[in-house]
Amino acid sequence: MKKKKIITLLTDFGGNDFFSGVLKGVILNINPNVEIIDITHNISSFNIHEGALKLAWSYKYFPRGTIHVAVVDPGVGGGRCPLMVKYQNHFFVVPDNGILSYVLKENNNFKAVEIKEKKYMLKNISCNFHARDIFCPAAAHLSKNAKLKNFGPEIKKIQKIKIYESGQYEDEIHGNVVYIDKFGNCITNIENNLIKNKKIRIKNFYIKKISSSYEIQNVKSRANLLAIPGSSGCLEIAIPKANAGSLLNIKIGEKIIVK
Amino acid sequence: MKKKKIITLLTDFGGNDFFSGVLKGVILNINPNVEIIDITHNISSFNIHEGALKLAWSYKYFPRGTIHVAVVDPGVGGGRCPLMVKYQNHFFVVPDNGILSYVLKENNNFKAVEIKEKKYMLKNISCNFHARDIFCPAAAHLSKNAKLKNFGPEIKKIQKIKIYESGQYEDEIHGNVVYIDKFGNCITNIENNLIKNKKIRIKNFYIKKISSSYEIQNVKSRANLLAIPGSSGCLEIAIPKANAGSLLNIKIGEKIIVK
Amino acid sequence: MKKKKIITLLTDFGGNDFFSGVLKGVILNINPNVEIIDITHNISSFNIHEGALKLAWSYKYFPRGTIHVAVVDPGVGGGRCPLMVKYQNHFFVVPDNGILSYVLKENNNFKAVEIKEKKYMLKNISCNFHARDIFCPAAAHLSKNAKLKNFGPEIKKIQKIKIYESGQYEDEIHGNVVYIDKFGNCITNIENNLIKNKKIRIKNFYIKKISSSYEIQNVKSRANLLAIPGSSGCLEIAIPKANAGSLLNIKIGEKIIVK
Repeated sequence: MKKKKIITLLTDFGGNDFFSGVLKGVILNINPNVEIIDITHNISSFNIHEGALKLAWSYKYFPRGTIHVAVVDPGVGGGRCPLMVKYQNHFFVVPDNGILSYVLKENNNFKAVEIKEKKYMLKNISCNFHARDIFCPAAAHLSKNAKLKNFGPEIKKIQKIKIYESGQYEDEIHGNVVYIDKFGNCITNIENNLIKNKKIRIKNFYIKKISSSYEIQNVKSRANLLAIPGSSGCLEIAIPKANAGSLLNIKIGEKIIVK
Repeated sequence: MKKKKIITLLTDFGGNDFFSGVLKGVILNINPNVEIIDITHNISSFNIHEGALKLAWSYKYFPRGTIHVAVVDPGVGGGRCPLMVKYQNHFFVVPDNGILSYVLKENNNFKAVEIKEKKYMLKNISCNFHARDIFCPAAAHLSKNAKLKNFGPEIKKIQKIKIYESGQYEDEIHGNVVYIDKFGNCITNIENNLIKNKKIRIKNFYIKKISSSYEIQNVKSRANLLAIPGSSGCLEIAIPKANAGSLLNIKIGEKIIVK
Repeated sequence: MKKKKIITLLTDFGGNDFFSGVLKGVILNINPNVEIIDITHNISSFNIHEGALKLAWSYKYFPRGTIHVAVVDPGVGGGRCPLMVKYQNHFFVVPDNGILSYVLKENNNFKAVEIKEKKYMLKNISCNFHARDIFCPAAAHLSKNAKLKNFGPEIKKIQKIKIYESGQYEDEIHGNVVYIDKFGNCITNIENNLIKNKKIRIKNFYIKKISSSYEIQNVKSRANLLAIPGSSGCLEIAIPKANAGSLLNIKIGEKIIVK
């Protein structure tokens, strides 16, 4: 049996409206033999940074050849151009507004085109719903084996947004909380392999030992705070069965020091 | 390869409960070779008007032959009858309570039957979950090529609810905000082809020019308010990167004038 | 055509994060020919009881052979072991923390193994995302016809949590509200077949007659409260088109008496 192509969707359209459903109709109309998977439609409205992070954390778990439509697009209908990008055998169909900034953090070995070919778009292009009119149709045609180069002219440089990066300062590593998940766990940008046998500081809290689970094992800290090698590949700060983010009033960007 | 039939789901069951999952189990139990797509399960509880709108805005984007199960059903278990409707080569499986009012706005060239045939229902019919016991089983059997007429007797007249309609008054078009989306964009019932070179009034705000994107281009109005031809086919009122609906306290039904 | 295996997902990961999307990537990477269905990802954080109930209410509606991944797992990375359980021709891939307590309420005719075989897990096992690293990979391999016994050693006794059980006291049946749904309907643990011609008491409210729909028919009670045989198989308490749970301040565990 021929393997179905997969298209993933990541947007800030929310789940209350009908937008995400319409995207699937558009795709299935073009290619009925594609598997559509929602990453999430609940990116905070207009928050490109959050979309960029979640895309980078998700895409690798999908099979090679997967097509990722990621649309957080405050500039829809304006000057930003629609992109189709191939990177590490994954495809990305996105507005050129920085949403690939974390995906392309490691290197720039990508191939990108601007999506210009009208035959790969819906007939009527609206001002404000390019996910439906441009991005998803392009993804659906790509899943039917249309070639990257046929979608439009090659693009050499794509937009980046400022991302949080950790760094070494003498014997310390300085980083940031980059995301706080539903449980209040604070995900940082300091890689797990840098925290072995280290101590952690966040705000005025000191964590003296890295934990290996949320069940505290001989770890004492104020507020039951613990540090754990996170599933995203980076250090996380958490409180067992409680919401560390809100209890300690931690915000995105909060500084964290590993020593 | 034979094309899979598609069944879409639109309900007010929410995403926290297990109801939408159960519907899919019921469908796959009857027809394992069907594609099930969620439009949304987050229609406001009991809000037939909202369900009717979102159904009308969504269904056309799906391939012909798609079966749409739309259940916002405050009268479940009461007198209203379960319907199966064919209209423009789409199928609708719905309670007869007006949820098709916007779909059938243009014309009444539909064919409808009351769903009565017991063999197309689950064995035990509950008082309060007909989506599971009647509507989804019917949709699943329809997707296996059961014929419309086999489900029950033909129905000539189906229920309608009051819908918002725009109208011409001398040199003005009067309409309403019919929906406010997640971003706070206010979708009206005034068609895009009627607003070219027009001025817009909503509450005490005047918008002197129609925009072509959310990126303001030489448009000045109080509160950065802009008017844009919307993706649903009708005029939308928005504030770039902000929530027009809540900032201006706009409600469903709010009057809007095009001049 | 060979019937696709189905994997259902029930978690407390929420819809805002990317977790549920990643699970699907992991599964499709191992078995691209499986159907993945979300029951819900919105179990209240860490609430094993709620997860256990919703799993029990959902699983039966899926075809035999379906694989149910149910992960509400506050002890992730700690001592609890990962289980694969066969019961009534359904498969469950779960942490051993009581999440099967309602599924196994009737009897213990299950077969269970501890998931230990490394080749059925992702290569790197994180501390805190075993749904991705252990449970979903196991489910995906099972869907490719790996045998239960190959996953690890048999387990005879699995964890149970305290569940609400109704009982007979002289001429009364005492039970509890076990769940309050999105509409505010209060689902109890008193079976529908025990309430015929009975009277109901909850808090200081008396309901003198069982209704057969939300449309009140000759039923008078304070607050329009009504009792109805529920779709889950048990008595429900509701107010037509209103939220009984919040209006009457009913909580999970609230006592209910049938006489």
